[in-house]
Amino acid sequence: MISAPLIERKLCGPGPCNPYAEAQVALTRPLLGHLDPEFLRIMDETCEMLRTVWGTENPRTLPLSATGSGGMEAAFVNTVHKGDVVVVAVNGLFGQRMCEVASRLHARVVPVDSPWGEPIDIHAVRRAHPNPDIIAAVHAETSTGVRNDIAALGEIKGNALLLTDHVTAIGGSEVSVDDWGVDIAYAGTQKCLGVAPGLAPFTISERAFKRRVGRPSSWYFDLGLLGGYVGGSAGRQRTYHHTAPTGMVVSLHAALTRILAESLDTAIARHEAAGAALQQGLVDMGLELFAAEGARLPQLTTVRVPEGVDSAAVRRHLLEHYSLEIGAGVGEYASSVWRIGLMGPNASPATVALVLGALGEALGR
Amino acid sequence: MISAPLIERKLCGPGPCNPYAEAQVALTRPLLGHLDPEFLRIMDETCEMLRTVWGTENPRTLPLSATGSGGMEAAFVNTVHKGDVVVVAVNGLFGQRMCEVASRLHARVVPVDSPWGEPIDIHAVRRAHPNPDIIAAVHAETSTGVRNDIAALGEIKGNALLLTDHVTAIGGSEVSVDDWGVDIAYAGTQKCLGVAPGLAPFTISERAFKRRVGRPSSWYFDLGLLGGYVGGSAGRQRTYHHTAPTGMVVSLHAALTRILAESLDTAIARHEAAGAALQQGLVDMGLELFAAEGARLPQLTTVRVPEGVDSAAVRRHLLEHYSLEIGAGVGEYASSVWRIGLMGPNASPATVALVLGALGEALGR
Repeated sequence: MISAPLIERKLCGPGPCNPYAEAQVALTRPLLGHLDPEFLRIMDETCEMLRTVWGTENPRTLPLSATGSGGMEAAFVNTVHKGDVVVVAVNGLFGQRMCEVASRLHARVVPVDSPWGEPIDIHAVRRAHPNPDIIAAVHAETSTGVRNDIAALGEIKGNALLLTDHVTAIGGSEVSVDDWGVDIAYAGTQKCLGVAPGLAPFTISERAFKRRVGRPSSWYFDLGLLGGYVGGSAGRQRTYHHTAPTGMVVSLHAALTRILAESLDTAIARHEAAGAALQQGLVDMGLELFAAEGARLPQLTTVRVPEGVDSAAVRRHLLEHYSLEIGAGVGEYASSVWRIGLMGPNASPATVALVLGALGEALGR
Repeated sequence: MISAPLIERKLCGPGPCNPYAEAQVALTRPLLGHLDPEFLRIMDETCEMLRTVWGTENPRTLPLSATGSGGMEAAFVNTVHKGDVVVVAVNGLFGQRMCEVASRLHARVVPVDSPWGEPIDIHAVRRAHPNPDIIAAVHAETSTGVRNDIAALGEIKGNALLLTDHVTAIGGSEVSVDDWGVDIAYAGTQKCLGVAPGLAPFTISERAFKRRVGRPSSWYFDLGLLGGYVGGSAGRQRTYHHTAPTGMVVSLHAALTRILAESLDTAIARHEAAGAALQQGLVDMGLELFAAEGARLPQLTTVRVPEGVDSAAVRRHLLEHYSLEIGAGVGEYASSVWRIGLMGPNASPATVALVLGALGEALGR
């Protein structure tokens, strides 16, 4: 089915995307030990560059040794005390997952649902509970291609901690943790940061850290222990916690260096331009976008599968004929929506042209 | 301090070791999506090769998306019910960590201590509790260089589940999950498998899976959910759980292919020969080995720092002059023991000669 030798995939699904060349080349560097002074320097620089990308001065900013979903788990397991009221704004799979993760930690979960494809309802979140301990939401809903307004949640959070998912946002959309009042945030490396999957950039405010669970059920994700190794202040003794994935961290360091050399603003503008061009092209082709106007992510476009078209057959054709991956929809939209990602190096006019050309051919348009 | 450009490190600490060339080259292959048919084929083959290395036919055998310590967490979080009696044989840091992880999950932990440097006491484990739910132990104690007898625990386990750590053992020592009666086992990729850190090979018997926690506090490590994506039987529908670290899995696939091409028995014999040669050379140099005779791991040698020698200064000299990393001791042995690993491609006469030559020069012997 798949021709061998395999032609390089163009990864335009919901992630992973193709990594930046700098990130992939970095994986060929000789491996370093996790306590090597050279590695510790790279780790410190990585945390510092992550602060820039997060828009934060949080000292506790680090890459966790897990994928983005591990970041979600770390966020909740360190902050949810038994019986805490956790209001979750839900308008897609990852909001639902937040409810599941929090509920396993014995939170009193208050989901606030909005229709898939629509942004979350800030007023409904405010009305959901008079005094929540945590308010949680997804910035860029990977399941629907919708952007939610995290800054607005920061304005209404009151005494609650604001816990947010930026897996698909980071590196492709503005994220301003400090300005927006975000207390705990996590992301993934395999989307707009342009690195292979395997690390979860993470940041937590001092306010949230003080309110954290002292001895969380998870030892692996215990930020109190992790802080001895990374993410704390300079000059202190390093303490061993677990063996960091040194090669992956070096790769993330290379990608962040590259993004900041381009400038974060320019990288974000590149994602916006690519997404706008793709969305216009799809509309011009007569297709209907799924995410509500005004709330569309540039880095992840959702589009309805035209009536009578076999969604999976089209995706298979793109993969086999163009070595181009696009994503299916999620849940009830599995076969009625496609998800097209333009992330990292794929946020480019060339990739837009490829996707439009290939999809147009497949649909006979 | 560290010269730039950096000379490639020879990683002879407790891990990571230098990866096999095949594992590192695999990281330069174009990245695949986590649902790509080509990736799923590689994942299936990886699970199959892991079964060979584990010595098991467990269908639920897979690489977890975390480091070895994440494997430990997954092992306990899926099997410890609140109030379960967990007998842990402790003769080093990683046995202690097992107690900590199990206790956070509200187990009744019964530690059975043996001195560091000595193997665990099987009879004491048997006497510790009449009817434990779980018996746990570390096969190759990375903190002390001691090999523990897991097969003997299998003989006395009775109705208990046997949960074992093979992080430093796998790929360098015989591991026979099925023959030894092991029910839950985890490892890491960065030791004798010769892959960068970041994945935790894992296996669980059907007997343990049936007794597992239905809805563990961890969503990320929930084997019930993970089984829909990998590790199950062929031919069923794949369900999305989280984005697998595709590049790392492809790298592990390459290392396993290489190990099985050499033959697992030959690779293990190579580790044994290298360790024996190093240990003989250290003794010939007038140094004293730390681990008890008869329980010494070949892939990780512990040796006492001679009286009056500055342990850290020697390690720094080896790193700066030879680009050679060896490890410090752990806990109270931090400055009185060195840990020297010969793992993966470093289990070779050439590396033995390098270590003995460099250490001899540093000590003036």
